[in-house]
Amino acid sequence: MPAEGFEMHAPHSELPRLAADVLARLRARRPRVHCITNTVAQQFTANMLLAAGAIPSMTIAPEEVAGFVASADALLVNLGTFDAERRRAVEIALDAAAAKGLRWLLDPVLIDRSPPRADFARMLIARKPAAFRLNAAEFAALAGQPAEATAIAGFARGAGSVVAVSGATDLVSDGAHALQIANGHPFMGLVTAMGCAVSAIVTACLAVERDPFHATAAALLVGGVAGEIAGGLAAGPGSFAMHIIASVHSLDAAMLTARARVS
Amino acid sequence: MPAEGFEMHAPHSELPRLAADVLARLRARRPRVHCITNTVAQQFTANMLLAAGAIPSMTIAPEEVAGFVASADALLVNLGTFDAERRRAVEIALDAAAAKGLRWLLDPVLIDRSPPRADFARMLIARKPAAFRLNAAEFAALAGQPAEATAIAGFARGAGSVVAVSGATDLVSDGAHALQIANGHPFMGLVTAMGCAVSAIVTACLAVERDPFHATAAALLVGGVAGEIAGGLAAGPGSFAMHIIASVHSLDAAMLTARARVS
Amino acid sequence: MPAEGFEMHAPHSELPRLAADVLARLRARRPRVHCITNTVAQQFTANMLLAAGAIPSMTIAPEEVAGFVASADALLVNLGTFDAERRRAVEIALDAAAAKGLRWLLDPVLIDRSPPRADFARMLIARKPAAFRLNAAEFAALAGQPAEATAIAGFARGAGSVVAVSGATDLVSDGAHALQIANGHPFMGLVTAMGCAVSAIVTACLAVERDPFHATAAALLVGGVAGEIAGGLAAGPGSFAMHIIASVHSLDAAMLTARARVS
Repeated sequence: MPAEGFEMHAPHSELPRLAADVLARLRARRPRVHCITNTVAQQFTANMLLAAGAIPSMTIAPEEVAGFVASADALLVNLGTFDAERRRAVEIALDAAAAKGLRWLLDPVLIDRSPPRADFARMLIARKPAAFRLNAAEFAALAGQPAEATAIAGFARGAGSVVAVSGATDLVSDGAHALQIANGHPFMGLVTAMGCAVSAIVTACLAVERDPFHATAAALLVGGVAGEIAGGLAAGPGSFAMHIIASVHSLDAAMLTARARVS
Repeated sequence: MPAEGFEMHAPHSELPRLAADVLARLRARRPRVHCITNTVAQQFTANMLLAAGAIPSMTIAPEEVAGFVASADALLVNLGTFDAERRRAVEIALDAAAAKGLRWLLDPVLIDRSPPRADFARMLIARKPAAFRLNAAEFAALAGQPAEATAIAGFARGAGSVVAVSGATDLVSDGAHALQIANGHPFMGLVTAMGCAVSAIVTACLAVERDPFHATAAALLVGGVAGEIAGGLAAGPGSFAMHIIASVHSLDAAMLTARARVS
Repeated sequence: MPAEGFEMHAPHSELPRLAADVLARLRARRPRVHCITNTVAQQFTANMLLAAGAIPSMTIAPEEVAGFVASADALLVNLGTFDAERRRAVEIALDAAAAKGLRWLLDPVLIDRSPPRADFARMLIARKPAAFRLNAAEFAALAGQPAEATAIAGFARGAGSVVAVSGATDLVSDGAHALQIANGHPFMGLVTAMGCAVSAIVTACLAVERDPFHATAAALLVGGVAGEIAGGLAAGPGSFAMHIIASVHSLDAAMLTARARVS
């Protein structure tokens, strides 16, 4: 599945149109995204990927993970469960991805609370993820400095990756360019695995958009706008989880353009 | 828990009445269904079984899986997570089921994408599942030929099992009889573990209906009609997952009769 | 995070006010609850904890579970998946909790159907859980006698713990005091992991309320009243799961007082 490109001349204002275009590609091509992720996040991640147009698979068995990665269009590595079996699956999957030239994303969940997990995440930087998605505390644990714009750009440049730091305002940088996205809703912090699921959508976008910076920014805008729409419909965090799946499924260029707060 | 029977003289027209009768038995007797299934599917499968009237259990620990199977009324074997621990649990569970004469169902999830998983599934045919539920690609990988009516009947005859191939139209065959069920809704393909959950409902029906062909067809009609009702209520795939649980819980003979498209 | 106290002079009538106060503390302080729980229950448990105001973590990796427990405010041990890896995680986590003087809760899921799991649960009594939450069949398997008020009080006294036995009417005892809570809704029995999630909320309350009896009774009232409100809104067990999360999130003193049936 060759990734297409989309020329953005004025990223701040053109991102909604790019994001709509990337969503259309997901729905038309249905990329396969292999996910090595934690058991808490698996169901919600799979449902968010399906809503976005992608096809998830989630095995971590050493006998078959390489085969699944080889027939996938992108790979998600989420460290939210840090057991020996999953670490081994990550190594096998990254070898299979490298052999095929497949893009992958690293989501170093909660490395700020686990030094061994942080060590493992730092070791994976050398395996050249196309993108990182993480929160400010996780960025600080990974990079050894606070999640400020210049530090994020510097880390992205050093790693040769796109870095997306999620928060009330998301920051996306590839070292040369940066965008801020101020969409989202407070309920996103009250649904488990919300960040994990957004990482999975970034991964899916990496399969269909040639420029990793554009793919990552588009996915974060999709997540943020879908979250805002869901927040307007939800009576609480339980129904929010349901509404954000519906919003991702029905999102279009008009909704993205009307709501995007990109700077 | 002895399984009752229900004589169908004209299966095409009598299936809704049989399905309502089987559902009534599930709700009255609350069979225990032990499920060896993948971690992505566990929560949704458990909630669908509870909605149908059955009581799920899901341990795969080698120390206790035999005990759970021995006190269960039917066994589900779903290959969606193919790790060594789960394979060992399958072996122990099948020995316990055989010792007790318990019926079991095989759901060979995604064997079309994993040769080692397909090998394992083929080996399990000799352990005589009462039924298989799978999609067309999985059938082709299992049987070595396309999922056409005569191939499905031949495979069912050879295996001495009922085979249910899910799709836009479901096909159920025991080698001697066959039914097609054209119910369902496109959102069923956008909720992870939907097929896994339907397999679990088939397994529950095998515990309370003597004829495995009737049990399997009844369960597929329940899933398809519940899906249609949910599709009419849902704004998107997120709420669809919630509505299909409610539909399974409230389904009755009138709804089944009004909507069934059996041929 | 030091636990505050709340003096109850007339527990039956003051419990709603205490429960509202404990909820306010959860929302203000956001205690971290580390959960060793089964894979079926993880997602729903995490979402219920987030709705109540707590912050869940769920790793069982031996390399890092001690670190997570050491930086947590309370520990949940749920035996719903009884594999070797989880048993080892329990031992490590209990050592870390003991070293820090951290309170923990034992939920001995389905020990009535698994003798090895029951043996393990009985062994854990000596590790002094602050509270147990379980159903009548599980209590009988743990204590060797039926779940009647005097047996529950005797067991609580012997173990030096609070015991909460869930059912149509919940019974909470610390050996010296006892309360009965008659709130709840039948759909609570049709959503998988509902008991597991209530146990997690008890665990969160143990982090912010000094008296374990008060903490446990408050949490069971929260669960029961939230269940009743959700039952009034839900069309079936699928939407019930969503509504109970919203109810826990929005519960206040007026709702607790209006609905509490404590004796």
